[in-house]
Amino acid sequence: MAYERNGRRPPREDDGTLIEGRNAVLETLRAGRTVDKVFVAEGARIGDVAAEARRHGVPVVTCDRRKLDHMSPTGKHQGVIAQAAVQSYVSLEDILRTAQTRGEQPLIVVCDGVEDPHNLGAIIRSAETAGAHGVIIPKRRAVGLTAAVARAAAGALAYVGVHKANNLAAALDELKAHGVWVFGAEADGTVGLYEADFDRPVAIVIGSEGKGLSRLIREKCDHIVSIPLRGQVNSLNASNAAAVLLFEAVRRRTQHG
Amino acid sequence: MAYERNGRRPPREDDGTLIEGRNAVLETLRAGRTVDKVFVAEGARIGDVAAEARRHGVPVVTCDRRKLDHMSPTGKHQGVIAQAAVQSYVSLEDILRTAQTRGEQPLIVVCDGVEDPHNLGAIIRSAETAGAHGVIIPKRRAVGLTAAVARAAAGALAYVGVHKANNLAAALDELKAHGVWVFGAEADGTVGLYEADFDRPVAIVIGSEGKGLSRLIREKCDHIVSIPLRGQVNSLNASNAAAVLLFEAVRRRTQHG
Repeated sequence: MAYERNGRRPPREDDGTLIEGRNAVLETLRAGRTVDKVFVAEGARIGDVAAEARRHGVPVVTCDRRKLDHMSPTGKHQGVIAQAAVQSYVSLEDILRTAQTRGEQPLIVVCDGVEDPHNLGAIIRSAETAGAHGVIIPKRRAVGLTAAVARAAAGALAYVGVHKANNLAAALDELKAHGVWVFGAEADGTVGLYEADFDRPVAIVIGSEGKGLSRLIREKCDHIVSIPLRGQVNSLNASNAAAVLLFEAVRRRTQHG
Repeated sequence: MAYERNGRRPPREDDGTLIEGRNAVLETLRAGRTVDKVFVAEGARIGDVAAEARRHGVPVVTCDRRKLDHMSPTGKHQGVIAQAAVQSYVSLEDILRTAQTRGEQPLIVVCDGVEDPHNLGAIIRSAETAGAHGVIIPKRRAVGLTAAVARAAAGALAYVGVHKANNLAAALDELKAHGVWVFGAEADGTVGLYEADFDRPVAIVIGSEGKGLSRLIREKCDHIVSIPLRGQVNSLNASNAAAVLLFEAVRRRTQHG
């Protein structure tokens, strides 16, 4: 219901993905659970937690203590909260193998810094319905597989693998080495949507909500493809853009038109 | 940032669209401001407010007092809160006239009970970018033009008119009387996405997030069109589905393929 989103206190979601307090976070990291980020209050003395996070390649985000208060399910965070993923990530090879097993040309969605969980969830859902073989997200400056993302994905996470890349540019290089064509989506592209040849191994790169594609990622793209804009607003919502591109790929692959 | 949506207390948005208290709500209604809904606490004695709302055709929603506490910007709601729209609605004729003025075949999106403000906002944004002439929403059991919808629409509300229909089925009849073909979107359709003839006056009807198209609205549709599903999940997010259908209409109208 609409007003719940406008409300002052949404019901607290205690889904077990936020782990609070020095010892609990340390144990979670040591146990090898998939952790997307560790949030640490400025000035908090948690050098051991930060070291353990680094050992597992988990980004440590330093922020104002009030942000931790805000996130905290119990209020007893002691200056540290770990954000665990609702599901394990897959490797890039897993994604390529899925395409190979199905006897299909790879169709992959790459999210360059999507921060809104509704958008990432909807992208995963659309990717799955379009028969894509995987979704790639970066480790930093982007939302991971949170409970909100899983809800927005509406069950699709069970069927489509998500790879979290340490370095998104390097992941694109690896895809290209495997013969995948990388199409960045942006308004000022070199290829129109209906001219893009998606009937081959393809990765579609979607930029972040505010900034679009980052410079480095844009440079890695083989083509920049543009959705034709017939109004005044110069971009679609990130997940809407992904859906349009994905189903144009489906059309090209099934209709050969 | 991801965790803000998971947080316990999102920053309060006091954007002036929630009007609280008996007198303020009465005055707002009498002044003729566009009000989407009046929320009334169970047992509250606000017969005069309910009568005034009915006089202006504004739905009165009775709910638990705690929901009003939850919505209230100040906590002083006295059992009644009006949800004003951020923008005025247009008429069905305005939408048809926009198409005529542009010398284009009407392209209209009809939302049958979309409740999520992110979805409605993204649909309005995609409609505008696809060059659609208007969006139609029902008066009841759906989100109106709230501040959250406006934010998700990313400026598109300034360029595309939204009509709020008292009776959505009657609005579809009126569109049909004007030569518009009504396409409902659902998984078990009679027409595939790439076979649908969108190169004529078209209204695309998107169902609600949970329930899809309502029976009555489905019966009013000339065709039920299906996006090809190539995965295990049996539907797309409502705004993603709208975007795919809208840009297939753009393709048909511009590529004639």
